[in-house]
Amino acid sequence: MSVQKPSIPQGTRDFGPAVVARRTYIFGVIRRVFEKFGYAPLETPTLENLSVLTGKYGEEGDQLLFKVLNSGNFLKKQKGDVIKEQVTADDLLAGAKAVLPKIAEKGLRYDLTVPFARYVVMNRGTLVFPFKRYQIQPVWRADRPQRGRYREFYQCDADVVGTDSLLCEAEIVLMMSEVLTSLGLTDHTIKINHRRVLGAFYQALGGEGTEVDLFTAIDKLDKIGREGVGKELAERGFSAEATEKLFDLLGVAGSFDEKLDRLLAAFVTAGVEPDGADGYQGLQDLRRVLEYLRGFGFEKWDNLEFDVTLARGLSYYTGCIFEIKINNVNMGSVSGGGRYDNLTGAFGLPGVSGVGFSFGVDRLYDCLEELSLFPEAVAATTRCLIANFDAESETAVLPVLRRLRAAGVATELYPESTKLAKQFKYADGKGIPYLLLQGSEERAAGQFKLKTLATGQEQTLTLDEVLTELAG
Amino acid sequence: MSVQKPSIPQGTRDFGPAVVARRTYIFGVIRRVFEKFGYAPLETPTLENLSVLTGKYGEEGDQLLFKVLNSGNFLKKQKGDVIKEQVTADDLLAGAKAVLPKIAEKGLRYDLTVPFARYVVMNRGTLVFPFKRYQIQPVWRADRPQRGRYREFYQCDADVVGTDSLLCEAEIVLMMSEVLTSLGLTDHTIKINHRRVLGAFYQALGGEGTEVDLFTAIDKLDKIGREGVGKELAERGFSAEATEKLFDLLGVAGSFDEKLDRLLAAFVTAGVEPDGADGYQGLQDLRRVLEYLRGFGFEKWDNLEFDVTLARGLSYYTGCIFEIKINNVNMGSVSGGGRYDNLTGAFGLPGVSGVGFSFGVDRLYDCLEELSLFPEAVAATTRCLIANFDAESETAVLPVLRRLRAAGVATELYPESTKLAKQFKYADGKGIPYLLLQGSEERAAGQFKLKTLATGQEQTLTLDEVLTELAG
Repeated sequence: MSVQKPSIPQGTRDFGPAVVARRTYIFGVIRRVFEKFGYAPLETPTLENLSVLTGKYGEEGDQLLFKVLNSGNFLKKQKGDVIKEQVTADDLLAGAKAVLPKIAEKGLRYDLTVPFARYVVMNRGTLVFPFKRYQIQPVWRADRPQRGRYREFYQCDADVVGTDSLLCEAEIVLMMSEVLTSLGLTDHTIKINHRRVLGAFYQALGGEGTEVDLFTAIDKLDKIGREGVGKELAERGFSAEATEKLFDLLGVAGSFDEKLDRLLAAFVTAGVEPDGADGYQGLQDLRRVLEYLRGFGFEKWDNLEFDVTLARGLSYYTGCIFEIKINNVNMGSVSGGGRYDNLTGAFGLPGVSGVGFSFGVDRLYDCLEELSLFPEAVAATTRCLIANFDAESETAVLPVLRRLRAAGVATELYPESTKLAKQFKYADGKGIPYLLLQGSEERAAGQFKLKTLATGQEQTLTLDEVLTELAG
Repeated sequence: MSVQKPSIPQGTRDFGPAVVARRTYIFGVIRRVFEKFGYAPLETPTLENLSVLTGKYGEEGDQLLFKVLNSGNFLKKQKGDVIKEQVTADDLLAGAKAVLPKIAEKGLRYDLTVPFARYVVMNRGTLVFPFKRYQIQPVWRADRPQRGRYREFYQCDADVVGTDSLLCEAEIVLMMSEVLTSLGLTDHTIKINHRRVLGAFYQALGGEGTEVDLFTAIDKLDKIGREGVGKELAERGFSAEATEKLFDLLGVAGSFDEKLDRLLAAFVTAGVEPDGADGYQGLQDLRRVLEYLRGFGFEKWDNLEFDVTLARGLSYYTGCIFEIKINNVNMGSVSGGGRYDNLTGAFGLPGVSGVGFSFGVDRLYDCLEELSLFPEAVAATTRCLIANFDAESETAVLPVLRRLRAAGVATELYPESTKLAKQFKYADGKGIPYLLLQGSEERAAGQFKLKTLATGQEQTLTLDEVLTELAG
C-alpha cells in the first residue's frame, strides 16, 4: 500500500461529532412531530434498479442519477455472451448512452418520493390505507456542487396516500408550524396555493400560450419581478392584455378569506368554466383547509399565507401546494410539497391520491446556525472527564466512573496518567463541561473536586453530591 | 412512462414501519451506551474516492466494492480527450480491469473503519486525541446475496485512536456487556484473546509453516474440529509434533486467571522468546484488562471468556481481539473487534494505535426476534385513532385531536367519514391500541368512549380522563 493523501468526493461531506449532534437534534424534532401525527417510518435501499429511477425525474434528472457499475466483470456480465457482442467499439463511439444500459443496472436513490411510490405498489396487498409514512434518508444527485448544494444530502419526507381528505392538507400546515416553532424558527411564512387556482388563471387569460409557460413565468416572479415576467410572457405568445389580467389576479390582496372571495368573483367575471380542472374547486379546497385549521384552533394566522404566485415544480402536483420561507434569513424555501393524483401510476397502480411534503435539513441547519438557535445542550457529548493522576488514583476512581455512568452521566476517565494540562486541553477540545479530580488528599478525605470548566469554579464534594450535581 | 413491475436490487431490503421501529430501538440502545462511555458520533459520506477504498480490503474486497460511474458522459470525462484515446476497443477486450479506472472514480463505503482512518488523517490538525468516535451507517458489498447476507447493511462501530491504554479494552468489554444486557441478550459470551498470544503459539511450535497458515487453521477450529485443523496443518507443513503441542496450548483450561498462569508457564517451557511481538506482553495486557475490570466492579465473569482459539480476521489487529457469541441462538458472532497499530498508515499517518469494535445489527435483530425480546412498546406508533362518524362529529373532535397531540400522545383522526368497520381495520392493521369514539349521544354528554382494541374493553370517560389514560 503506497501512502496517499486522502480526500472525499466533490459535493460530499464528513460530519464530525458536533455537527452530527446538531443534525440529530433537527431530525429528532421532525421525527417526533411526524410520529405524533401518525406518520410511521419507512426506509428504502440506497441502491434502486435504474429501471425504477429512469424517466421519473425528466431528462435532466436522468442525467443527474448516480449509476452503479454491475459487479464482477461488468463487461462480461450478461448471460455469458462474449464481450464484443455486448459493448462494442461502435457502442463506444456512440458514447455513454449506448454503453450505459449494458454495464449499469442500479443507481443511487435520487429522492424519497419515487422509492415510496415503488414501495407502495410492491406492498399494496399488505399495506393498510390510507398509508402514512415518513422517511428521513440521504439522496444523491450528480449536480455541479456549489455553496449549499451537495451531491449527497438528506431529505425528510412525510406523505399520506390513499385518501383525498383535505384533513391531510390541514395537518401538513400544523406539522410544518409545529416543527418550525419547536426549532425556534418563529419568523416564518407557510405559503399555500392550489394547482387548480393557477389553472383557472390560465383560463381567465383566454387560453393564449401554454399552461406550462404561464406557470414557469409565475414561478420566477420573486426573482425577475413583474417586468421580467411580462417580457417572458410576451415572448411566449401572451398578449399584453392577458398579462395585465394576470397581474390583476396575482395582485389579489387581503386575508386568506378575502383572497378566496375576491378570486371567486374574479373567476366569475373572467368566465372561468366550472368544470374539469376548475379553479372553483381549487378555491373550495383551500376554504376547506382553512375550516379544518379553524376547527383545530390554529392560531398562527400571521405565519400562513395564501400566495397565488406560488407555483413550485409542477410536474406531478394536482391540488394544494406548499412552501415555507424563513423570513429573517436570506435563504430559499426550507420545505415544500403538495397533492398529487397519480404518483404510483408509472408502477401500474393508477388513481391513488396522496399529499406530502419534505424538509430540507441542510437549509434548516444553516438557518438555526445563523440565528444561533441550537440549544446549548445539543452540542455536549461527554458531561464529565475524570482526571488521571497516576496508577493508584486511576484504580481508585474506576468505581466512581462506573457509578456516574450507571446514573446515566456520560463520563470518561482520561485513559493515561499524564500532565493535567493535557487532560484539560482534551476536555476543552471536546466541549466537556465538568472535570472531576481526586488527588491523594481528596482521596484520604473521601472527597472530590468538581471543576466547571466554563467558569473555573471549583467545588469540594462527596460522591453523592457530585452525582446530584451532574445527573441533574 | 410505460407501466412497469417494480422491484428492488438483489440483497437490498425495504424496512417497513414495524421493522424500522425495532431497528431504531437497537440503534438507540447502542448509541446510548457508546455516548455514556464518551464516544462521539461521526458520519462519513456514502461515496468515497476509489483511491481511498482500493487496496484496503485485499483483492477479494476490491472485487466486492460497488463502483459508481463518473457522472455526465462518463466515456468523455477526462481532460477533453476523444473517446477512442480513453477507453479503446483494446481496453474493452482486455476487460473490466482496463476500463474501470477510466470510467469510475468513486465507490460506495465498504466498511466504517477505512473512512474513519481517512477522516482522522484529513482532520488530524483539529481533532483532540485520544479521539473516540462511534459511527452507525450502512455499508455496501457486492457479495453474492444469501440468507442473512445482504449487499446493503448497517454497521455500528466504536473506535478510539491515539492511546494504547488498556483501559479502552476494558471499557469495550463493559460496553459490550451493557449493550447485550440492555437488549435482554443475557446468555452471551464475550470472547477475548490477544494477537501476541497467538504469535507466541507460533513460536512455541518451533517456527514451522507460516504464522498466517497457523492462524487461519485455528480460526476454523469450531467449524472443522481438531481433526480438520490437524489435517490442514499437516498439509501446510506443520509436523505432527507441532500440531500436538498446539492442541495442548489451545486446550488450556480454567478461569481467566488460571489460563493466564498456565500459558505463562507453557511459554517458558516452550522457550518462547521474551522480545519482539512476544506472547508475554500479550498475557500481561490481558492481565491488565482483567485488573481494570475488577477495579470497575465488573460482575459478569461467567459471560467473559479468555478464548485462546479466537483468531478473527487478523489483517490489521495487533493486540487484544474480541468477539461475541449469543449462546441460546444458532448464529455467528454478533460483534467483534480488536486493537490495531497502523490503521492510518496507508494515508500517511503511521504509528497511531487504536482499538475498536463493531456490532452487526442484522444479527442482533434476528437474535431479539428469535428470543422474542423486543419490548412491546417498540412496535407501537400511533397510540390512539379517533373515529370519524360524519362531518359534524369530525369538526367536533378536532380540538380533542389537538389536545391529545399537545399532551404528546400520537393520535390520528381517520381522514374520512366512512364505515366504522373500515376504521377498526385501519387501527388493527397499524397496531393502534386505542380507539376513541364520540357519537352524538356522547357529544351531548361531553363524554367519549375509549375502546382498548386488544381486549375490547370500553370505558366512558371525560376528555381529562382520556388524557390521563393515554398520556400515562
